[in-house]
Amino acid sequence: MPDLAFTQGEFDRRLAAVRADMAARGIDTIAISVPENIYYLSGYSAHSFYSHQVLLVSVAEHDPLLIVRAMDVRCAVHTSWLPAESLMGYDDSYVDNPDRHPWALFARTLRERGFATGRIGLELEGYWLSPKAAAEFTAAVPESEIVDATGLVNWVRTVKSGPELVLMREAGMIADKAMRAAYEAIRPGVRECDAMSHIVAAQIAGTDTISGHFPSEPVFLAAGERADAPHLYWRPSPFAANGSVNVELGGVRAHYNVGLSRTITLGAPPAGIERLMDANREALATGLDYAVAGALAEDVEAAFRERLARYGYDKPSRVGYSIGVGMAPTWIDRTVSLRPGDKTMLREGMTLHLMAGLWREEASCVLSETFIVRDGPPEILTAMPRDLHRAS
Amino acid sequence: MPDLAFTQGEFDRRLAAVRADMAARGIDTIAISVPENIYYLSGYSAHSFYSHQVLLVSVAEHDPLLIVRAMDVRCAVHTSWLPAESLMGYDDSYVDNPDRHPWALFARTLRERGFATGRIGLELEGYWLSPKAAAEFTAAVPESEIVDATGLVNWVRTVKSGPELVLMREAGMIADKAMRAAYEAIRPGVRECDAMSHIVAAQIAGTDTISGHFPSEPVFLAAGERADAPHLYWRPSPFAANGSVNVELGGVRAHYNVGLSRTITLGAPPAGIERLMDANREALATGLDYAVAGALAEDVEAAFRERLARYGYDKPSRVGYSIGVGMAPTWIDRTVSLRPGDKTMLREGMTLHLMAGLWREEASCVLSETFIVRDGPPEILTAMPRDLHRAS
Repeated sequence: MPDLAFTQGEFDRRLAAVRADMAARGIDTIAISVPENIYYLSGYSAHSFYSHQVLLVSVAEHDPLLIVRAMDVRCAVHTSWLPAESLMGYDDSYVDNPDRHPWALFARTLRERGFATGRIGLELEGYWLSPKAAAEFTAAVPESEIVDATGLVNWVRTVKSGPELVLMREAGMIADKAMRAAYEAIRPGVRECDAMSHIVAAQIAGTDTISGHFPSEPVFLAAGERADAPHLYWRPSPFAANGSVNVELGGVRAHYNVGLSRTITLGAPPAGIERLMDANREALATGLDYAVAGALAEDVEAAFRERLARYGYDKPSRVGYSIGVGMAPTWIDRTVSLRPGDKTMLREGMTLHLMAGLWREEASCVLSETFIVRDGPPEILTAMPRDLHRAS
Repeated sequence: MPDLAFTQGEFDRRLAAVRADMAARGIDTIAISVPENIYYLSGYSAHSFYSHQVLLVSVAEHDPLLIVRAMDVRCAVHTSWLPAESLMGYDDSYVDNPDRHPWALFARTLRERGFATGRIGLELEGYWLSPKAAAEFTAAVPESEIVDATGLVNWVRTVKSGPELVLMREAGMIADKAMRAAYEAIRPGVRECDAMSHIVAAQIAGTDTISGHFPSEPVFLAAGERADAPHLYWRPSPFAANGSVNVELGGVRAHYNVGLSRTITLGAPPAGIERLMDANREALATGLDYAVAGALAEDVEAAFRERLARYGYDKPSRVGYSIGVGMAPTWIDRTVSLRPGDKTMLREGMTLHLMAGLWREEASCVLSETFIVRDGPPEILTAMPRDLHRAS
């Protein structure tokens, strides 16, 4: 029996929602390459997406067909609800071979099953469909019209169901635990890599009752003269006696991610960091006040920005995004962005990561929360106080 | 000053080798999207590749131009040797926005600098160039001919230099340390996630003098009824009292990866596992005997296969590949494969991961080594005995 995080009813609901969107857009078949979308619809969970793989979903009521590298069919047997006849493997001669492309095979399979007519959707802006793959596939289904189905499944994923929110809450507990591990480990003189080791160990171990995972994004520790750079990896050098460290990390439960950012001060903190924190705290609280069902994404950002401007500060990058299932390399749903021009109406059950952050010459400081959009006040998924943490 | 793992002379040598291959193939400019290739040539090291980024290298002797999301320019300042005038950022309105594509901007930049003529190479089979990105770029450089430059930099990377081999040896030390952590942690009754936590902590902490990293591939623990599946993630359930666990893990130093696989037995091991191990050990040793400079990749596999056949066994998937720089989602160089039909001649300084593995009904068992190809016997990068480890 496969190890599934959801009931068959939940998977059926998701497939029905995807098929309804396909029908509305006149798409007969969608060839899904984004591993988060494959997981969402089939349960398939394996680190196998560095090889080409596809989930073929037709608008008609057949089971989807999952095609993976032959050795990974067993991974599907253990993790997906799909019956054996809906799993196919391709042999190793198709792996990293310029002369034999799996996507040509996927197209031939579609033809053999009679689905290579009509409009076929490809995720033309996903990470895992190469230009060559799209070209090989397209050439092999000459009777079909290829359309861009980027985001179709992502948008269905953007509103989380009750069972998904249970997992998001558990991911939030793990994020809190990982941040407490960061608070324990980050001290003057401790090597960055040793602190990181301690934090990631907490992310993976989870709690007494649930397993964690490492997140689709690494933990970011921005310390010392590198505090101005958001996405660096860690170093073997020790934390300084004085200064601050920005920590952005995730908690993960069954591939559902919750993001959380805080700033830790070491010894004598940089002058002015308290004021940055006050500005972040107020802007974040204002954003949360506005992030109710029915609001527009850009309105949340506008309220946040206006509040920040009272301090004379500005955050030029987006202040948040939809978060949820993430395998690699990001936990971002790639749908809703909290920024000017995004007119998505927030709906109950969306989960957003709202991020305050100021990177200035005198100091830098981050603060973020992941929350569930509600009709009333949002449900925050972590419990960490919104304060600077002073390393002991 | 940026934090660099190599001297400027080493970076210059790499760029010269890439330019020589470009000239030989008549490519005027290459637009590099694979993060490992960007790192290899520029030193740029950040978890930012979930946003579009490019390193533009012209065959002429100009510095390459790195274009990343605006907030990540600071990451480049801290990690790349490129001077400030060779770094460009694009604003956040280009992020996850169907209407503004970074690759159209990259093409416009190329035009403005006068490099949008002649033949431009794109990595059409990399993970990080989407079909939409390639289409947007191509449409914006109508005077140019687009050619497939997949693998051009990867092939230069395949033969490692002396300074790279130093890092590979250090990665091997970390792989040994991580496997010892697996030997300590994996015991009957211990939860898979707690063992994983212990192993990854060892991968990241590195040694007293060097920092580790988590590998571009997660640690694979295949235990119990899931021992037949190679690429699953871990579970919260405990290891059984009897059975075996296949462990595949990596050690990483400055993004250089060494792979290592061993099998651990628990309590009463499965009947027949010793014979599988004997077959793996002999096939691996035979493969290593044949893997000398001047041999063909397929000959190594043939010798391995012939030896395995004496036991009546067969391994249908490739038995090895070139390994080295890996950021995500794999450490595979995507060049040399040890399998029938690969006629690459092995050269001194290549690093290969040779993998024995048998997945049979009675039991499964894995064994692998990463090594440097030499004129004489290979230099094995780890020191673990090639035995089944019996959990205490």
